[in-house]
Amino acid sequence: MITAKARAVDGPDQAFRSAEINRRDLDTTDVLIEIKFAGICHSDIHTAHGEWGPVNYPLVPGHEIAGIVTEVGSGVTKYKVGDRVGVGCMVDSCGECENCIKGEEQYCLKGNIPTYAGVDKYGEPTQGGYSTHIVVTEDFVVRIPDNIELDAAAPLLCAGITTYSPLHHWGAGPGKKVAVVGMGGLGHMAVKIAHAMGAEVTVLSQSLSKKQDGLQFGADHYYATSDPETFEKLAGSLDLIINTVSASIDINAYFSLLKLDGTLVNVGAPPEPLPVNAFSLIGHRRSFAGSMIGGIRETQEMLDFCAEHDIVPSIEVISADQIDEAYKRVLASDVKYRFVIDTSTI
Amino acid sequence: MITAKARAVDGPDQAFRSAEINRRDLDTTDVLIEIKFAGICHSDIHTAHGEWGPVNYPLVPGHEIAGIVTEVGSGVTKYKVGDRVGVGCMVDSCGECENCIKGEEQYCLKGNIPTYAGVDKYGEPTQGGYSTHIVVTEDFVVRIPDNIELDAAAPLLCAGITTYSPLHHWGAGPGKKVAVVGMGGLGHMAVKIAHAMGAEVTVLSQSLSKKQDGLQFGADHYYATSDPETFEKLAGSLDLIINTVSASIDINAYFSLLKLDGTLVNVGAPPEPLPVNAFSLIGHRRSFAGSMIGGIRETQEMLDFCAEHDIVPSIEVISADQIDEAYKRVLASDVKYRFVIDTSTI
Repeated sequence: MITAKARAVDGPDQAFRSAEINRRDLDTTDVLIEIKFAGICHSDIHTAHGEWGPVNYPLVPGHEIAGIVTEVGSGVTKYKVGDRVGVGCMVDSCGECENCIKGEEQYCLKGNIPTYAGVDKYGEPTQGGYSTHIVVTEDFVVRIPDNIELDAAAPLLCAGITTYSPLHHWGAGPGKKVAVVGMGGLGHMAVKIAHAMGAEVTVLSQSLSKKQDGLQFGADHYYATSDPETFEKLAGSLDLIINTVSASIDINAYFSLLKLDGTLVNVGAPPEPLPVNAFSLIGHRRSFAGSMIGGIRETQEMLDFCAEHDIVPSIEVISADQIDEAYKRVLASDVKYRFVIDTSTI
Repeated sequence: MITAKARAVDGPDQAFRSAEINRRDLDTTDVLIEIKFAGICHSDIHTAHGEWGPVNYPLVPGHEIAGIVTEVGSGVTKYKVGDRVGVGCMVDSCGECENCIKGEEQYCLKGNIPTYAGVDKYGEPTQGGYSTHIVVTEDFVVRIPDNIELDAAAPLLCAGITTYSPLHHWGAGPGKKVAVVGMGGLGHMAVKIAHAMGAEVTVLSQSLSKKQDGLQFGADHYYATSDPETFEKLAGSLDLIINTVSASIDINAYFSLLKLDGTLVNVGAPPEPLPVNAFSLIGHRRSFAGSMIGGIRETQEMLDFCAEHDIVPSIEVISADQIDEAYKRVLASDVKYRFVIDTSTI
């Protein structure tokens, strides 16, 4: 058993505390990673607060992990000690179902094994990246290109792939008009990636407070959704909308912005059902879709794409003692645009 | 002005009565059609009853029209006197917007001109197919293949194209598992067409009362949605679901039947919004889409496809005096599977 330092939370209303956790001894295909940086994702907060169902505390969140390989199992072929690597939202899957075989492990029919708050194939609870070390089977490890710093790489493992995957799947590119709803951790990545893909990018944010940033990230247009004229002006003009906002929004108003065959993709989900007016979809053969992170092969593709296009998230590096404060600031939308924990401070 | 006999309704609660209506004199590109048969679509009933918004009565419904060309305007090039032709849900569109140019006139950005309860480009109200004659610009007329009888052709102009278009657009064919929700006028056509396209077809109907018919129409499987086991058995198994039911259904239960990248397409719309659980979509990158009839080019393609595959709707021909009774029977789901008015009885 390998002992790692971590920051854990003991209940929905608890503060983070120092902890020691066990990581399994390396199986033949396992890689031991010394974690250097871990991003803070809104999902971490939902889970830590018990908002997504019961949690077996203590919990160590974190699924935006960047680090260095320090040991490899006897059968590992893809990585060697010293490699710069990342781990995202899942650490295993069945590997045998039709979705896994397609390389879409996130949609594993038996359920992928999440990086934290899950149970691994040895029956042990999984614990995430707010920690100094993690053991992961090599098939769920990706390589971080040399020109991406490890602190900036971390958020790509969730915020990056969660936005890259639907943009790629629904064909964002030259000649396509893509809108991004929300300018948070996911939204700002969606803007950078969609711009690099060659699409014409519009940000739809509650206010214009982050307009300068949005334009700098590559947006061509920036509108406030609090202004009803936005919806009149953009009616029927968009090919693809990536909705990064998990709160309930007036979804039918956003459908009205899509042109023929346009698609609105939710990458987050509000806890309450969204009241969809089917006429909004029928009128222009529109689609309402959902997308969840991306497969491992696609995650590597995303990292390579970001390296090629010099795309990195805009981050604020914090120490482990600042996690509670960072959570509060994420909830208050006071983050530009992702907190990343320097795990040397754990 | 051309005078035609018709059956009209004067208000939401009124019975049909005999009427004389005016059809415009032929413009250069117009075709005068002697209507032989007109199908009764559920939309006719919604409109006649004022359920889809205010109606300018008297109203002559009917947008499943089959007949013979009896006169053509001086500039008509596509049709000649004696041709067997059909008219569907629309009789004109702007012809200039990007959707019209694509041949998707049903999604005309200025709004297509519906066959009835609309206003034509001369400012006159449009009146539908429960009538002896109609004048339509040749671009909105389609040719009925010789091996399809006119009475059976009529329902293809709405029920046929409304189901053919999404089946074609979303790639129903060999290796694809397609389900049809509802075994009414639209549903029975969807089964026949999807089967002819080579898909594996499942019917999802409230009960098993029409099972024998469904299997005969080409369904491979037939399940009752009133049986909860249906949803367990089919979970995650379908590529495409065509929902022909306009009433509210438990839409999230149907999403759960879709596999990765599966799509549920509504071709009707309930008056109330459908509560969509975004998690249902995100879990397997599913889509919820809408589709409305089809373009003129595609309507011709559908007719040719049906002719090639010997597909015709299952109909019950009635006289004009039976329209009120037929409406009641449609509302009671007591029709196998489409009423068609013999307009010689008007």
